[in-house]
Amino acid sequence: PLWHLTAFVETLKVPDRYMFGPGPSNVPPRILEAGARPVIGHMHPEIFEIMSDIKSGIQYLFQTQNKMTFAVSGTGHSAMECAIFNTVEPGDSVLTAVNGIWGERAAEMAERIGGRVNAIVAPPGGIFTNEDIEKALSKHRPALFFLAHGESSTGVLHPLDGIGQLCHKYNCLFLVDSVASMGGSPLHMDQQEIDILYTGSQKVLNAPPGTAPISFSERACRKISSRKTKPLSFFLDFNWLTNYWGCDDKPTRVYHHTGPVTAFYSLRESLAVLCEEGLEASWERHRTVAEYFHAGLENIGLKLFVKDKQVRLPTVTTIIAPHGYDWKEITSYIMRTHNLEISGGLGPSAGLVRS
Amino acid sequence: PLWHLTAFVETLKVPDRYMFGPGPSNVPPRILEAGARPVIGHMHPEIFEIMSDIKSGIQYLFQTQNKMTFAVSGTGHSAMECAIFNTVEPGDSVLTAVNGIWGERAAEMAERIGGRVNAIVAPPGGIFTNEDIEKALSKHRPALFFLAHGESSTGVLHPLDGIGQLCHKYNCLFLVDSVASMGGSPLHMDQQEIDILYTGSQKVLNAPPGTAPISFSERACRKISSRKTKPLSFFLDFNWLTNYWGCDDKPTRVYHHTGPVTAFYSLRESLAVLCEEGLEASWERHRTVAEYFHAGLENIGLKLFVKDKQVRLPTVTTIIAPHGYDWKEITSYIMRTHNLEISGGLGPSAGLVRS
Repeated sequence: PLWHLTAFVETLKVPDRYMFGPGPSNVPPRILEAGARPVIGHMHPEIFEIMSDIKSGIQYLFQTQNKMTFAVSGTGHSAMECAIFNTVEPGDSVLTAVNGIWGERAAEMAERIGGRVNAIVAPPGGIFTNEDIEKALSKHRPALFFLAHGESSTGVLHPLDGIGQLCHKYNCLFLVDSVASMGGSPLHMDQQEIDILYTGSQKVLNAPPGTAPISFSERACRKISSRKTKPLSFFLDFNWLTNYWGCDDKPTRVYHHTGPVTAFYSLRESLAVLCEEGLEASWERHRTVAEYFHAGLENIGLKLFVKDKQVRLPTVTTIIAPHGYDWKEITSYIMRTHNLEISGGLGPSAGLVRS
Repeated sequence: PLWHLTAFVETLKVPDRYMFGPGPSNVPPRILEAGARPVIGHMHPEIFEIMSDIKSGIQYLFQTQNKMTFAVSGTGHSAMECAIFNTVEPGDSVLTAVNGIWGERAAEMAERIGGRVNAIVAPPGGIFTNEDIEKALSKHRPALFFLAHGESSTGVLHPLDGIGQLCHKYNCLFLVDSVASMGGSPLHMDQQEIDILYTGSQKVLNAPPGTAPISFSERACRKISSRKTKPLSFFLDFNWLTNYWGCDDKPTRVYHHTGPVTAFYSLRESLAVLCEEGLEASWERHRTVAEYFHAGLENIGLKLFVKDKQVRLPTVTTIIAPHGYDWKEITSYIMRTHNLEISGGLGPSAGLVRS
């Protein structure tokens, strides 16, 4: 005897909305339509072609020649875990830079798998000098150092120059989260000696959430291949994933998991759009629009949370809710009246609004 | 100085293909179109409505009243890890039934996180009697027993009656993989006392791969809430996921990860299609079509791998490649000539073809 369902009395309803929060972003029709193309097999030659395009697109986006470049079948958090699970073994020392939510989450992930985690902490909105970082590297001798390039919870764009070199001086891998910044602000993975870099599909790339580009340097690969234990996740296992993506030199690809083929279509198309515009043009567009937007906000008397213009994230602007106003009331009014999303703060920036 | 990309000279090409392998399946236009609707926020009230529909749809599909019912933001392997990571602590005894690839994968996942894994093994194509299972439960006293309902690598549909009750007699959780079978063959989660059940979106549901329905019984929840250690994955953490899906009784939902909103649209629509047809009708359709197909294959002299009609999986048929023929040549010919996918065997069934 079955019990029956009374739900689904209504059809799927999705509003058209201006997505001006920190992500997901609005997805242009070309990318949405790509994701609605027919499903093919996750091991068919045509999907391998598409995955090869994605790999090239990510290499360009990240400015890297790394062979071990692919997309995780999941959102940014899956890529975070993919980075940490593969490079950290139980007992490894891990250092995270905490100036917002992302450093905390990286610390939590590394702790859960048995990493010995230390953090350097800056107040929300702050950054770390290379001296701060070197001091901590020298003290904790970590195997991995985590830094968020775009700290979307506070609106900070962290400088990257010289940090990779410092990490390597102390025999440490440099892991960078660029979910909020990638494509919107200059970053050069190889030149800046970043060892593991990941982003999400749903920010500057304007694809739906569900895939997460990632890349590993040779140094990162050496750490992984010298592991004494298997990574704790089979699904996120580097060796399986790089084989599925044709990054290793093996002649055949072995079935690992069923790749989200339609999400690969839209990711491929979003990378094609970015390549057509060109990275420099995309960086410049984000810079110009952000400066115009910030000036406009200040002209009407609003205060930005990040004082130093040099470290303002061009993709996510954090605004201090004016004294005497409730930010929730403001964002709700804007959503209700204009169907336009502006997010509240997250973690240490609760009480701000983010756009 | 940037280096530039020379790829993407061609536009996205996706062939129309008859997807007659074990999955992903062809996706009907209604479901593809749902996935191409505009992106909204992963915490907007409208997506919570859609997630609520998904939850009801899964409860119906699984025939369960479990509150802790939701979809993992990933493919079937993510759901496998979600089930195992949350219910197994390092040192826990785990028993897996291996009669194909899935029992092996479950064993590998549990081993990686420190489970003490034992397996009962049947030859490919075989099944286990309830006596076999009780003997192993009594010997190994596992905290978790894994069984694949639909063993897609061999084409076996495993009987489920009585096993949940046996597991509970030995204070063990019953975990069932129904990726290949769900919706195509009768299963009653509550009545059959299954504690954790999951499936994928890309099989009978005919949605693109990328989401994985899962449900936890109260008994499973008790095991999880009595954990001494945090689950190793933050991304797959039961408490965070059930809060995001509004399954717990907390008044607010906290940002965990960015749900793949467009994949939720298509999953919602695939569940709506199934509810409109009705589970009994779907089961009956799969049974009738499989019997017709199997009789036709035998009429032209082909031999099915699974001898016992009672345990043939109606959704995946395994055919022995005729003596003197190379299965790869046959399936390649069919793909080339008819653009129709028939898969080769997997793991223990290499040398077979699967349709």
